[in-house]
Amino acid sequence: MPLPEVVLASASPRRCELLATIGVDARVRPADVDESALNGETPTGLVERLARAKAVAVQAQLASASPGSPSPERRDAEAGPLVIAADTVVVLDGEVLGKPADAAESRAFIERLAGRSHLVLTGHCLRRGAAEATRVERTTVTFRQLDDDDVAAYVASAEGADKAGAYAIQGRGAGLVERIEGCYSNVVGLSLPTVIALARSLGVRLG
Amino acid sequence: MPLPEVVLASASPRRCELLATIGVDARVRPADVDESALNGETPTGLVERLARAKAVAVQAQLASASPGSPSPERRDAEAGPLVIAADTVVVLDGEVLGKPADAAESRAFIERLAGRSHLVLTGHCLRRGAAEATRVERTTVTFRQLDDDDVAAYVASAEGADKAGAYAIQGRGAGLVERIEGCYSNVVGLSLPTVIALARSLGVRLG
Repeated sequence: MPLPEVVLASASPRRCELLATIGVDARVRPADVDESALNGETPTGLVERLARAKAVAVQAQLASASPGSPSPERRDAEAGPLVIAADTVVVLDGEVLGKPADAAESRAFIERLAGRSHLVLTGHCLRRGAAEATRVERTTVTFRQLDDDDVAAYVASAEGADKAGAYAIQGRGAGLVERIEGCYSNVVGLSLPTVIALARSLGVRLG
Repeated sequence: MPLPEVVLASASPRRCELLATIGVDARVRPADVDESALNGETPTGLVERLARAKAVAVQAQLASASPGSPSPERRDAEAGPLVIAADTVVVLDGEVLGKPADAAESRAFIERLAGRSHLVLTGHCLRRGAAEATRVERTTVTFRQLDDDDVAAYVASAEGADKAGAYAIQGRGAGLVERIEGCYSNVVGLSLPTVIALARSLGVRLG
């Protein structure tokens, strides 16, 4: 089967690089979605809802950018681009750690994560036409013990400033993480085996 | 304390990149060591012995490259460069899978690894002067189920041709690996938290 165009509904360069690793050259199309949690929403419910919202928003953007609906024959033969969306959060003691507001919050997050395990949840949503496949993937991440100098040096690097939980496992943060249990790319922001499996369930072979 | 020069006793660009990730700019100095196993040697014994042999060989190279022994005072104050060596093997059913001989063996390895878990062992040896620190780190890696097309596409990429077990987790192989248990960088070829801990036991603060 021919590979449809792949559109990544995310502004994250990390997610785009992950897809490139397995040979998928995705068009990047950030989705403008309010990422705040709803009252009483679980972390799993949150990332699933946001991933779906991003995928739907980008499908709508693409539709409005190319008006004129395809003929029924074309709609059958060609369901349009495969849209891939994801949303990642860090969960510690049941609390979602989002992107830190400033260096002080980065420091507070890293101090809390040190010497312990936390969960990284990524919600995935793939859509092609009206077909949809979703999955939330969980990875447990364990930080090594950190002393004050470790924390100060990491926060000063500022690499975690724009990342959930205030760290990047694929950067200098690799030196903070002692072990993981689960999918590694899920911690970076997109589980590659999950994306491959969901795409196949929609009839698209990636990777 | 001032950071000594760091010498990586390995020709692997992957190990050098891992060290660069945590801000360590290592001089690369490949060690010429016979990597074959001894009779009755366990995989753990093998990687520990080879890592030590690489570190010792590179220390000897460096000493012969700069003849004239330092004064006793200088020897106290300056123990010379920190040498980092590592050796990685893939173990399946107690059998060591080394680098594949050819594409046929690559295919055979990937077929055997598919849908199952295996162990990746990396022996680490750090030496500075006469001081030494070693550790063997174990990570469990689980491949997803692969069909014939998956195996053929991966072998055709040839990225595993020069790698233990015939795959690279940091490349296209990321799409083959469903989950890991343990340290991720250990699978790439050098466990960063292990190197940081061993270096600290020798009085050197990396990362």
